[in-house]
Amino acid sequence: MPDFSIGVDLGGTNLRIAAVSREGKFLERIDLEAKAVRGPDHVINDMCAAVLRLTEKHRGDGQFLGAGMGIPGLVDIESGTVRKSANLPGWSNYPVRAEIEKRLGVPVFIDNDGKCAALGEKWMGAGRGVATMGMLTLGTGIGGAIVLGDEIFRGTNEMAGEFGHVPIERDGLPCGCGGYGCSEKYASASALIRVAHEAIASGRAPALAQAASANPELKAKVVYDLAMQGDEVSRNIFHKFGKDLGFLLAGLLNSLDLDMYVIGGGVVSAWDAFAPSMFAEIRARALIYVTKPKTQEGNVADGGAQDVSVVTKALLGSDAGLYGAARAPLMSEKKMGEKP
Amino acid sequence: MPDFSIGVDLGGTNLRIAAVSREGKFLERIDLEAKAVRGPDHVINDMCAAVLRLTEKHRGDGQFLGAGMGIPGLVDIESGTVRKSANLPGWSNYPVRAEIEKRLGVPVFIDNDGKCAALGEKWMGAGRGVATMGMLTLGTGIGGAIVLGDEIFRGTNEMAGEFGHVPIERDGLPCGCGGYGCSEKYASASALIRVAHEAIASGRAPALAQAASANPELKAKVVYDLAMQGDEVSRNIFHKFGKDLGFLLAGLLNSLDLDMYVIGGGVVSAWDAFAPSMFAEIRARALIYVTKPKTQEGNVADGGAQDVSVVTKALLGSDAGLYGAARAPLMSEKKMGEKP
Repeated sequence: MPDFSIGVDLGGTNLRIAAVSREGKFLERIDLEAKAVRGPDHVINDMCAAVLRLTEKHRGDGQFLGAGMGIPGLVDIESGTVRKSANLPGWSNYPVRAEIEKRLGVPVFIDNDGKCAALGEKWMGAGRGVATMGMLTLGTGIGGAIVLGDEIFRGTNEMAGEFGHVPIERDGLPCGCGGYGCSEKYASASALIRVAHEAIASGRAPALAQAASANPELKAKVVYDLAMQGDEVSRNIFHKFGKDLGFLLAGLLNSLDLDMYVIGGGVVSAWDAFAPSMFAEIRARALIYVTKPKTQEGNVADGGAQDVSVVTKALLGSDAGLYGAARAPLMSEKKMGEKP
Repeated sequence: MPDFSIGVDLGGTNLRIAAVSREGKFLERIDLEAKAVRGPDHVINDMCAAVLRLTEKHRGDGQFLGAGMGIPGLVDIESGTVRKSANLPGWSNYPVRAEIEKRLGVPVFIDNDGKCAALGEKWMGAGRGVATMGMLTLGTGIGGAIVLGDEIFRGTNEMAGEFGHVPIERDGLPCGCGGYGCSEKYASASALIRVAHEAIASGRAPALAQAASANPELKAKVVYDLAMQGDEVSRNIFHKFGKDLGFLLAGLLNSLDLDMYVIGGGVVSAWDAFAPSMFAEIRARALIYVTKPKTQEGNVADGGAQDVSVVTKALLGSDAGLYGAARAPLMSEKKMGEKP
């Protein structure tokens, strides 16, 4: 058994913990309820008890190097505290890192969960082996991160990678950020659902209306299934979704020119439905493609997608954050020059 | 007299050479004709003769550390050759760096002229003292660069910083790059002139028409003067120009979150005419502003510009490239640990 670290993925309702080897293998994994409403002390006590059981079990086989935790919210990685989190009431200014370090007796790292997911994909997922990577996680909004080497590029105000707030419409929809026309109003999972509801309300989407009346909590999966069954309205929703995402990505390709852009989030399972129009948009606008002669396949919705390998889907799903969180203690030790 | 290096700014028609001290002072400057059509050998002979006269003159006072040259085109900095240049016919595959090193006997660095200008502004201009900087040079197109620390961030295909090709219009004008709706079709100096000509052609711009008939080679300066004299059409042209530039910048602020974005190019002398609408757009869309309470002044064309110090105008004008070119030999020596 090799040396290992612990990765923790804290959500509003779930707390997932994994022991991960230096080589990036999951040794063991525990899923707990987060019980966030009971406050940070409770959650951290539960978590540390579980971590200690896990490390006790594996300690004989290798060295326990430290723990990393991904947190949904604005994290101050220097002070090891949560600045702001919609899902974790009462955590502001609680000394998260210090409290965990006290209980575990090893170095602890905390970071935003989206940044952890990006580091995870970079380490063991889609971005394995590339030097620079952008990540876009399509969910309620669009989470984003820029990874240069093994590090998150954080930006002056720790806002680098906020791709969801790149404006793509001049007179667009108002966004929760206070701006308007932001890409996440068009190319996030929740935007897709909003558009589906709008189509239903317009009275011109009978198949979607039927699906929604059967299950009012309309999911992207339902729209996807209908699109794959040939429902024109659902196909068009994904077509527009992909086009909007491609418009955003073309701008990112031309301004940042990273090795790879990884698309994550549950809606990625509908890749087939939106990737063709996304790639068509990228091929029509990204410098690395427009300056090359176009192939006959270089047109909309044709499956010519494979040549645009610079944009690809995430591979680790919801485990990405665990990998990324577990990485920090391994990296940190490496940096100090021990066992490189 | 301190140690110094030589910066060279090679254009299609002009060749400018400056001896620059380690502290960033111009010691002496020479302007020559480039005579690019006579081919690289001629230009480099002329240039090296001039450099040698200059260094001979200053050699007694300090050490001549090396030379850097900015070239308009796609430069292969590793091999020291020009890959492609519209303004320098016959330079492709000519061993520029090796030929200059042979003649001067010091380390020589070559780079794209826009990248040199960005490094110059970062070193001695608007970006002095900041850690990260983006530069946008508004000219025929929009030249761009990302500077992290003292280095250009070049990107996988050396296309990082191609801000002129970030698409800002969905069904926009075709661009020379092969794409369409690129920002440089709306927010470059040549875009401004194109819009002015369109206004004249529409028959609804009498003041501009008069100015253009007096001098068919319409310049941004003419449009600016009319705007400042209150001509509504000219004012609107700059207003839209600023709004488009602000739209682009808001996206860059939200995705890259650099310390500062510096706007260069001759059209910057019309700053007063376009900055208000540019800043209004940025304040309405950039996360660092929209999340703060808006002031009463936070509206269009009101001179509230000064609070958006993250976007600022270039300070070195056409000298930026000379500073940046001269920097490389100074940095390089520093890196090797001599006289830090």
